[in-house]
Amino acid sequence: MNSSPADSSASSLPPPRLLDDVRSPADVKGLSATQLTQLAAEIRDEIIQVTSRNGGHVGPNLGVVELTLALHRVFDSPTDSFVFDVAHQGYVHKLVTGRGGDFFRKLRQSGGASGFLMRHESPHDAFGAGHAGTALSAALGMASARDLRGTDEHVVAICGDAAFTCGVTLEALNNVVASTKRLIVVLNDNEWSIAKNVGAISKYLNRLSTNRTYNKIHHDLERFFTSLPGGNDMHRVYMKWKRETKDFFVESSLFEKFGLRYLGPIDGHNLEELIKNLEFARQCDVPILLHVLTKKGQGLEAAMLHPEKFHGLGAFDPQTGESIKPAVGTPPNYQDVFGQALARFAKADARIVGITGAMPSGTGLTYLANECPRQFFDVGIAEEHAVIFAAGLATKGIKPVVAVYSTFLQRGYDQIVHDVALQNLPVVFCLDRAGLSPNDGPTHHGIFDLAYLRCIPNATLMQPKDEDELVDMLHTGLALNAPAFIRYPRGAGRGVKIKDKPALLPVGHAEVLREGSNIMIWALGTCVADAFELAERLARDEGLSVGVVNARFVKPLDRTLLLSHAACIPMLVTMEDHVVSGGFGSAVLEVLQEADCSTTVERIGWPDRFVDHGSSVQALRAQHGLSPDAIYRRVLDRWRNRHAAPIEAGA
Amino acid sequence: MNSSPADSSASSLPPPRLLDDVRSPADVKGLSATQLTQLAAEIRDEIIQVTSRNGGHVGPNLGVVELTLALHRVFDSPTDSFVFDVAHQGYVHKLVTGRGGDFFRKLRQSGGASGFLMRHESPHDAFGAGHAGTALSAALGMASARDLRGTDEHVVAICGDAAFTCGVTLEALNNVVASTKRLIVVLNDNEWSIAKNVGAISKYLNRLSTNRTYNKIHHDLERFFTSLPGGNDMHRVYMKWKRETKDFFVESSLFEKFGLRYLGPIDGHNLEELIKNLEFARQCDVPILLHVLTKKGQGLEAAMLHPEKFHGLGAFDPQTGESIKPAVGTPPNYQDVFGQALARFAKADARIVGITGAMPSGTGLTYLANECPRQFFDVGIAEEHAVIFAAGLATKGIKPVVAVYSTFLQRGYDQIVHDVALQNLPVVFCLDRAGLSPNDGPTHHGIFDLAYLRCIPNATLMQPKDEDELVDMLHTGLALNAPAFIRYPRGAGRGVKIKDKPALLPVGHAEVLREGSNIMIWALGTCVADAFELAERLARDEGLSVGVVNARFVKPLDRTLLLSHAACIPMLVTMEDHVVSGGFGSAVLEVLQEADCSTTVERIGWPDRFVDHGSSVQALRAQHGLSPDAIYRRVLDRWRNRHAAPIEAGA
Repeated sequence: MNSSPADSSASSLPPPRLLDDVRSPADVKGLSATQLTQLAAEIRDEIIQVTSRNGGHVGPNLGVVELTLALHRVFDSPTDSFVFDVAHQGYVHKLVTGRGGDFFRKLRQSGGASGFLMRHESPHDAFGAGHAGTALSAALGMASARDLRGTDEHVVAICGDAAFTCGVTLEALNNVVASTKRLIVVLNDNEWSIAKNVGAISKYLNRLSTNRTYNKIHHDLERFFTSLPGGNDMHRVYMKWKRETKDFFVESSLFEKFGLRYLGPIDGHNLEELIKNLEFARQCDVPILLHVLTKKGQGLEAAMLHPEKFHGLGAFDPQTGESIKPAVGTPPNYQDVFGQALARFAKADARIVGITGAMPSGTGLTYLANECPRQFFDVGIAEEHAVIFAAGLATKGIKPVVAVYSTFLQRGYDQIVHDVALQNLPVVFCLDRAGLSPNDGPTHHGIFDLAYLRCIPNATLMQPKDEDELVDMLHTGLALNAPAFIRYPRGAGRGVKIKDKPALLPVGHAEVLREGSNIMIWALGTCVADAFELAERLARDEGLSVGVVNARFVKPLDRTLLLSHAACIPMLVTMEDHVVSGGFGSAVLEVLQEADCSTTVERIGWPDRFVDHGSSVQALRAQHGLSPDAIYRRVLDRWRNRHAAPIEAGA
Repeated sequence: MNSSPADSSASSLPPPRLLDDVRSPADVKGLSATQLTQLAAEIRDEIIQVTSRNGGHVGPNLGVVELTLALHRVFDSPTDSFVFDVAHQGYVHKLVTGRGGDFFRKLRQSGGASGFLMRHESPHDAFGAGHAGTALSAALGMASARDLRGTDEHVVAICGDAAFTCGVTLEALNNVVASTKRLIVVLNDNEWSIAKNVGAISKYLNRLSTNRTYNKIHHDLERFFTSLPGGNDMHRVYMKWKRETKDFFVESSLFEKFGLRYLGPIDGHNLEELIKNLEFARQCDVPILLHVLTKKGQGLEAAMLHPEKFHGLGAFDPQTGESIKPAVGTPPNYQDVFGQALARFAKADARIVGITGAMPSGTGLTYLANECPRQFFDVGIAEEHAVIFAAGLATKGIKPVVAVYSTFLQRGYDQIVHDVALQNLPVVFCLDRAGLSPNDGPTHHGIFDLAYLRCIPNATLMQPKDEDELVDMLHTGLALNAPAFIRYPRGAGRGVKIKDKPALLPVGHAEVLREGSNIMIWALGTCVADAFELAERLARDEGLSVGVVNARFVKPLDRTLLLSHAACIPMLVTMEDHVVSGGFGSAVLEVLQEADCSTTVERIGWPDRFVDHGSSVQALRAQHGLSPDAIYRRVLDRWRNRHAAPIEAGA
């Protein structure tokens, strides 16, 4: 299945590929059926080669090769609009809309294609996304806009089955019929969200896929199409089909209860069948849902065997599917340390439970799922429900831990305010991927959480300097008897030893790690290590006495220590892996203002703009003025501006 | 139907009421069927009398009198847990759980009962709420907790039909079967959310209510029950019923697709029928949904005729249902000014549309609905969908205006970040009820929006000083071609004239309204008027020269003006109707820090705790140190501390 890696130079060794000549959807339309099949194979090869080097969403994209080609065959992008849910299955779409070659080979790297769809990347990306469940609402907006404007383009929402575990998809479903008469929804059913799908809708779709009535309808439809001379007179087919199958549809499918016509199941790897059904849908004068069955990872054996792993992953061996091992000596991930600690705590206390929204392996909750399955809940991609479900558990003496990526917690914001914090319920939120998720980009960076949580009364916000302190914070959060939020980054920890017995941290107390008399750096989480380097360099090169504080708590902030520093140290620096607007540094300013301290403060954090994807955190920091050098210069400039006189070293 | 108002003294004139002797659910259990009917009538009278004076959710509560009594008859609160969705229909529950008498008569007033359920108000309030759609998730959490703990109490979620337009209810529905085997869901179907219900589910429920199959099942069930000697052997009934009606249920109802047994429709005003069905549900060994039909406003003619008005309203005449008119000369509400302006703009520009989540009248969108119905969208209580739907519309050249209460916009937070701001789409958000909603309390105050929005790149945030400037801001927002957020308070404006032609405000520019050389007050929105009074008093009593700035934009903040003030005026005061953590004042501190200004700043705003309900904004301000006197003293103290020397007036 795998070809040798394509050379970016025009080497003559590999056989000429159709893919290299596909520069726009028009080129796809020009291919014969055989060529289309060949193109599908070439696209699979390309995706496997590129993702095996760069990492990425392998499984979802291998699953939609034929579906995407069929869409471009039948519809006219960008006049017609495709809205891909989550948009992590857009690689095929990118390859046939002028974004192949080197641009695609730098997938998820600086200067290369985004791993998701982005409106600013191509006019063929009608709507960007990185969070699940948004496509149907967006498509409905587009369809309504079209109706208002009186134009007649098509709008096609391509939703995974997991999107139907998201409340917003169901909100949209409830509005389809009221909003438009013409909308095509492709339900790309691969039975997986990120983990294996959960819940009643998933079971229902499975029943639907194997249900004889529906299969019969499907075969009838097949017959109608194939019996037609030329197969062109779609309208007549449609009328006939409507007449003859009407009885089967009355009150028969969930989607029809929402007013959509249901068509399926359709083999998502059969190009001819896909094209025929999409042609049919294109003629339809009511909202229609096409139920397409695909296999995640189709064409790569390892990916089909391990769909969760191959949903999205780092570099791997394209032959064996083995992940490229991290360099020897790489410390364990924050995720694993968290997951193991939670499992350990839960074994010792049956009241402790873990909740995830379809991310057991990403968040490290698999340890809990394996060791204490009764204390583990995967609610699907349903963050709103996850938060209130936790609140409900907490009212009856259970100690819920919600493990969720920082960016996805944005989906449970009202529930945090209204259900957890207002009732002061003891729910612990573990905000994974706080900071950058560099290869994923702006939909996945977690750099707003402190700002949106800091304003909420009753909330305690913490960030550990290393993975051992993360365990202490989890322990502390569970003992708090009030809402607790712990944020920590993606990936490897500092490599510190995890204590046998976690410490109960005094809430609202920071930790002075290094004394200093000229400048005191208040650093949060991962920035503590950066602060040490900065302090060292300022001492070495400038003779400044620079201290470092591990802030630990953003809320409540250690006012006493902060004010004692402000009283005797002429300059403070705050460092956080978060936007500076409303973040940790802003909290520091508030405390200083309340005490009327006029200390000079420099706040280091992400500026007020969205941060794109890039090859690494380092690359993105450099791009946004946050390289160690840039920070060094900023701090020094500020110091010099305020304190122009030469400074003696020493505290 | 209406008795004379109950006297709070033990006057002997009115006939003795059963209600006065009901102090706990046990007292309800002791009543005969006739007495129960009498109690229902007394409760209706009490609700009508109290809400006619205090305002409140009249319609929803009159609709659930029998249902609530039946629940207390069948279940044992607080051992069994009732979770009322939105919890604005909890008056009856309050009256039978020891919260009647004077406490209830001060409903929604300082020191009286909350208009919603609150865990800290009573152990019978298993879960508080004020936003729709949370009950099923919370109940599922409680049921799972019960299962984990191995106890056997019942958990009953009472959800309005509107809750099923909320995504989170559908997320919960998807999880019911995976989470527990025992849960009772009462679907209180009155065909209204706040406005008339919209969408496919509402239509579906209506079909279900009139469907012959279901009615047949229902009558069968009736027959089973009534044919039993004594009607006690519920388990046998259940088995028989299951056996005999099985065929009707296969693939027949939406709820069964989610794995819940469906039972209904049930007459929600027939106590006997309700009790029988709830008894049956209590014995059920699978999650069950009881479809109960109620009439909003049952027992008050005016409320039945005008369900939207009587959903929640201010004081009214209990005989005629006429609202008590505002005092002569009361200026028009911000809501009406906004709604009329939007309708005017939309008539002139067909690209302008308005979107509401079931709040056409609360937000003032009824003007648009009446004048440009094609440009008006009510999506139901579905804020997530509303935001993405708007984003989708905006991608195709439509100019959507989302009108939503500040507190409810919290439900669309991720969508604002991920769908609108990241794609920099021109959606205008009109945040109504920014500031306090005093009678409603903490679930309805809108005092976090600046903090949670200020961190979002591409966002423009504004607040007008009066209703004419609101129109200017709407005009400016629509011209911005980027996400715009306009916040404004509940209720009457300042009474200023609305200009014929709105002004296009220069983005990021504040307006100096009064010069000053000692103190400059940067005030936001409604606080501008307070700032004037404060400035006047400081000038009069202390001889200080105090200026006032109408900030207009929180983001982008007018840096140039602010820094010019900071450079020559020794003290700044910020005033906002918002929490001080992360709010407008915090943004001011950030600008000053960036420029290394050490000006003294006093920030006035709500402190870091949830604000309860109360009789008025004034009362709640006084309670939280924000009375005009308290603010005056704070500002003066700060001034004196920093500037102990006597100050000459003038500048």
